[in-house]
Amino acid sequence: MTYFSESDIQNLNHLYKINLINSCSGYKSANLIGTKSSDGIENVAVFSSVTHIGSSPAMLGFFLRPTTVIRNTYENLKATGFYTINHIHQNITEEAHHTSAKYDASVSEFEVTNLKSEYKGNFSAPFVSNAPVQLAMQFVEEYEIKANNTILVIGKIIGLYVNDTLVEDDGFINLSKAKVAAINGLDGYAIPETKARYGYQRPKELKASS
Amino acid sequence: MTYFSESDIQNLNHLYKINLINSCSGYKSANLIGTKSSDGIENVAVFSSVTHIGSSPAMLGFFLRPTTVIRNTYENLKATGFYTINHIHQNITEEAHHTSAKYDASVSEFEVTNLKSEYKGNFSAPFVSNAPVQLAMQFVEEYEIKANNTILVIGKIIGLYVNDTLVEDDGFINLSKAKVAAINGLDGYAIPETKARYGYQRPKELKASS
Repeated sequence: MTYFSESDIQNLNHLYKINLINSCSGYKSANLIGTKSSDGIENVAVFSSVTHIGSSPAMLGFFLRPTTVIRNTYENLKATGFYTINHIHQNITEEAHHTSAKYDASVSEFEVTNLKSEYKGNFSAPFVSNAPVQLAMQFVEEYEIKANNTILVIGKIIGLYVNDTLVEDDGFINLSKAKVAAINGLDGYAIPETKARYGYQRPKELKASS
Repeated sequence: MTYFSESDIQNLNHLYKINLINSCSGYKSANLIGTKSSDGIENVAVFSSVTHIGSSPAMLGFFLRPTTVIRNTYENLKATGFYTINHIHQNITEEAHHTSAKYDASVSEFEVTNLKSEYKGNFSAPFVSNAPVQLAMQFVEEYEIKANNTILVIGKIIGLYVNDTLVEDDGFINLSKAKVAAINGLDGYAIPETKARYGYQRPKELKASS
């Protein structure tokens, strides 16, 4: 196996390092976060760090750096309190990835890509049209990660839309039926195929040791 | 689309709710975290919340609840300061998932599954043998998420082992070459296939509006 020590990693050139470290944690979720500014300008941006926090209450988290392109998302969700999370699927991976380009806050990514915004009920933030899973989120709290000034944003799910065909009898959303993407590293998009569900695990009976 | 409001979600039966909410964030990373107790007892447990925090310094985070089976992992890494993160691949998904069963701290999951522990250099925590990506981690800090008492553990990468064939010229680790798994919900395992890399995105030139 190839080995990289801590100092090897520190001394890698920038591009090699960000590719390596961004792909070493495994597959990442592939989501588009939609917001609207107080001025009414829509924003949508790709995120690969949306993570399950808890089911009761139903909460998700994601990480961002306030000093990057992602700032529009952060400013909008702090100003309005609301955002959407939308799954990236096979047909929109290229357009979704383009939302990582650094556009000025006055430009909506919905205008410069083929992604279409969509509004549901009286929820103020834009969803991404045709995403197989769409979440209406309300900001709850944030944590500044001291080690590198990243921000963890925690939100609660106040609405969940799922394509009818994806929800199985026990509540499981079959993501592979919808060709939902997973992200590898900074810019790799993969389409998983579900192989197995193994259910809730109970301990095996162990032989008493003598 | 099927719609679940916040109160719909709250009122779902427990099993349906945990299946639904655990699968609504998209695909999750599939990792085994290895630790050793101060008494020398090895522990290995499946986690689906390992997330990239930053590349410089190289850091990853994961979430856990101190009151579940996962407690052994937490107690060991707090006591020793060290843990490993190992990628779950196609051949070990079933054995890996079984580590979610609630064994007493005196039982090592390496004894009740076919997973084999492996030691490298003078690093004290056990790696999972044959995992295509293995990370030696040092605890940095933790955050208690007030909204539900979950704990976010942040660690830095002090060693990274990758199968030789996976690292591309620019540092990208091609996870699909190694049949690395992604997790759907609580118990679904999928094997992604990388379709495309889109590279770093720059803004399109916009036509001046009149």
